[in-house]
Amino acid sequence: MIEQSKPSALSKQIEEMVEWLASYGKDNSGGVTRLLYDPAWSAAQKAIQARIEQLGLSARYDDVGNLFGRLSGRDPEANVVLTGSHVDTVIGGGKYDGAYGIIAALIAVEYLLTHHGLPLKPIEVVSLCEEEGSRFPMTYWGSGNITGIKDREAVHHIKDINGIPFEQAMHGAGFGLGLHPQPTRKDLECFVELHIEQGQVLEREEKSIGIVSHIVGQRRYNITVYGESNHAGTTPMQWRHDAMFTSAELIRSLMHRAKAHESGLVATVGRMEVKPNVGNVIAREVTFSLDIRHSDAETIKQFCESCFGEFEIIAAEHGTQVVYHKWMDEPPIAMDNTLNQTTENILKTRGISYKKMTSGAGHDSQIFGTYCPTGLLFVPSQGGISHSPAEFTHTEDLQRGVILLIDLLYKLAY
Amino acid sequence: MIEQSKPSALSKQIEEMVEWLASYGKDNSGGVTRLLYDPAWSAAQKAIQARIEQLGLSARYDDVGNLFGRLSGRDPEANVVLTGSHVDTVIGGGKYDGAYGIIAALIAVEYLLTHHGLPLKPIEVVSLCEEEGSRFPMTYWGSGNITGIKDREAVHHIKDINGIPFEQAMHGAGFGLGLHPQPTRKDLECFVELHIEQGQVLEREEKSIGIVSHIVGQRRYNITVYGESNHAGTTPMQWRHDAMFTSAELIRSLMHRAKAHESGLVATVGRMEVKPNVGNVIAREVTFSLDIRHSDAETIKQFCESCFGEFEIIAAEHGTQVVYHKWMDEPPIAMDNTLNQTTENILKTRGISYKKMTSGAGHDSQIFGTYCPTGLLFVPSQGGISHSPAEFTHTEDLQRGVILLIDLLYKLAY
Repeated sequence: MIEQSKPSALSKQIEEMVEWLASYGKDNSGGVTRLLYDPAWSAAQKAIQARIEQLGLSARYDDVGNLFGRLSGRDPEANVVLTGSHVDTVIGGGKYDGAYGIIAALIAVEYLLTHHGLPLKPIEVVSLCEEEGSRFPMTYWGSGNITGIKDREAVHHIKDINGIPFEQAMHGAGFGLGLHPQPTRKDLECFVELHIEQGQVLEREEKSIGIVSHIVGQRRYNITVYGESNHAGTTPMQWRHDAMFTSAELIRSLMHRAKAHESGLVATVGRMEVKPNVGNVIAREVTFSLDIRHSDAETIKQFCESCFGEFEIIAAEHGTQVVYHKWMDEPPIAMDNTLNQTTENILKTRGISYKKMTSGAGHDSQIFGTYCPTGLLFVPSQGGISHSPAEFTHTEDLQRGVILLIDLLYKLAY
Repeated sequence: MIEQSKPSALSKQIEEMVEWLASYGKDNSGGVTRLLYDPAWSAAQKAIQARIEQLGLSARYDDVGNLFGRLSGRDPEANVVLTGSHVDTVIGGGKYDGAYGIIAALIAVEYLLTHHGLPLKPIEVVSLCEEEGSRFPMTYWGSGNITGIKDREAVHHIKDINGIPFEQAMHGAGFGLGLHPQPTRKDLECFVELHIEQGQVLEREEKSIGIVSHIVGQRRYNITVYGESNHAGTTPMQWRHDAMFTSAELIRSLMHRAKAHESGLVATVGRMEVKPNVGNVIAREVTFSLDIRHSDAETIKQFCESCFGEFEIIAAEHGTQVVYHKWMDEPPIAMDNTLNQTTENILKTRGISYKKMTSGAGHDSQIFGTYCPTGLLFVPSQGGISHSPAEFTHTEDLQRGVILLIDLLYKLAY
């Protein structure tokens, strides 16, 4: 068992590896930009491959560019304990999102091999090729291929912002050519992902680890209010069919309901487009986004129904119409109870503070979670800041996560 | 006295002259685009000049391009009874806005000269060079120069959308070169403007003429709410400082207050800009326009104070800040009571229905109204539509306006 009290070598290793991986894709913003199949992405995967081989593990890619480092198990029949995260970043992202899960997995496996030799079950470190959807309109390409829910059909016609087709980019990086095994796996025992929280809950509540019970379900809508344009000076208030006034009432009603919900439900209107968007013309059309998340699909459904019922009443009062375009409806995904119980036991033994929580953000674990027992574990994010060069987690927090991962992989594979 | 019952020749003349003036600047939208000093504008002024001369009046320009047609009075000491409107249009405007006031003035003066000979006081028809501000960031250039509240200083550095300096355009059209008299007038007895309502009040209330008591005062603001951007999934509702939620509450509060005001006050939020304007990111900054109009400056002031007081309370509840940028504060302008009483008497005698009302839109009369007794008279706008090719007023309504103008000019000048 790794000693928590003397972590100076471990903390130094973590810090060095964070800088090492962040050096691939370092951009002018002071952040990291590593987009699927781009040169920084290829360089990062090659560096991780070299690191895997240096540890004495066998490295291999699949045909979409996921990279695996395998520590063989003593039981030839046993399925694989998989751990890691995604290697891609958003544009101008931080050093920790995705990267931390890969680094932690590499360090944990190195430690286990050094101190405990070969496990009973094989352990694989995975550097997933893509999760963010930052280059192409495609998310979870790595985990989606491994679990068989995504395939080449999905990317036939998509292009990046420079017009480069997905498949051309993939071929350019050496994938999609049949040079590597097909990505779908049938031999996974479980998946464990260590990730930064990207929120403020752990920091505010002064907890070291978040044990995720569910990744929330999400519905996303574009909601359009149709009113009538008119002159701001010559149209009395009572004759107006004002799409802006209506929208303000709808958003206010929705937000107060979300705030009063007290179940962890979150609702966000982050985007608005107004037509004609001129100060002295009453708006004829307002479209706003709606993003609703909760760990229970039925709760989301009921919340939407009750909000939209109220919307109809408000719009009728204004003589305006509301049209709902639902373009995302992802169910909540439960993480594995047994895995979470094991994690909890470890943390209790270690005396590390933790919180059972939901994940409001999406992660590869939600893809694995529909497919094999999956555990998603958080470390705190300073100020909740993520997808930014200012993304930061203290080394002590990163270290507690690595120690937890070492213990957990030991329990799962040895 | 012109006979109201046999108006076929008059109605034909009005219809022909509407089409005649609309033919200068006819555009691809099916509307009229006649911008200050552009070729269509010059052609229209030349056509009006020819018409003035054909009527036996003396035509002259001033040095900014206002065109006057003078019917001399028998009293050499008498000041001028001025009537007309602006010849410029918005981009893709209608056939009536501005043009109707010029056409009506030409017809009225022709009728009066034919039937009553020379007046006691001189009557001048004016085709004002500019009111809309559609080409340059400058409004009321015509009436502003006549009344001496605008001068060349104001246009030194302004350009149109193609980068053409104001003065270059003016010189190109033959003005600003000292070839014509300076525009400031000291000899105006009164100004009468006949105009389409550009609203629906007369149509809805089935009145033929609007007698304007005041042109409303206007305040315009850009109001910015500063909150904090955060992740839509990982930030619980109670920790948010959401600029969009705050703005929705502010706009709703403001609009309900305006609606409850019941004094003819109108308030409009027509424009909104959101930052970063992304569906899954809580808005950090929202700027919205505010346009408030009323016939009493103190009412506007008190309304703003009470709204903004409420804004501060709402923003404090959200932990957001509100910043107010007032960029327009124009006082209400009263039209002349005596003139309006004369108008009312004429309409009563004629049995023409009318409504005393305020003008929610700006007009040249608000510039003249600070300078000499001024009357602004409306005819109905079908559906309240204006600044559009669909702008329309029935010939019978146009004709009632012309008959009123004939009678009124007779009372004022004969």
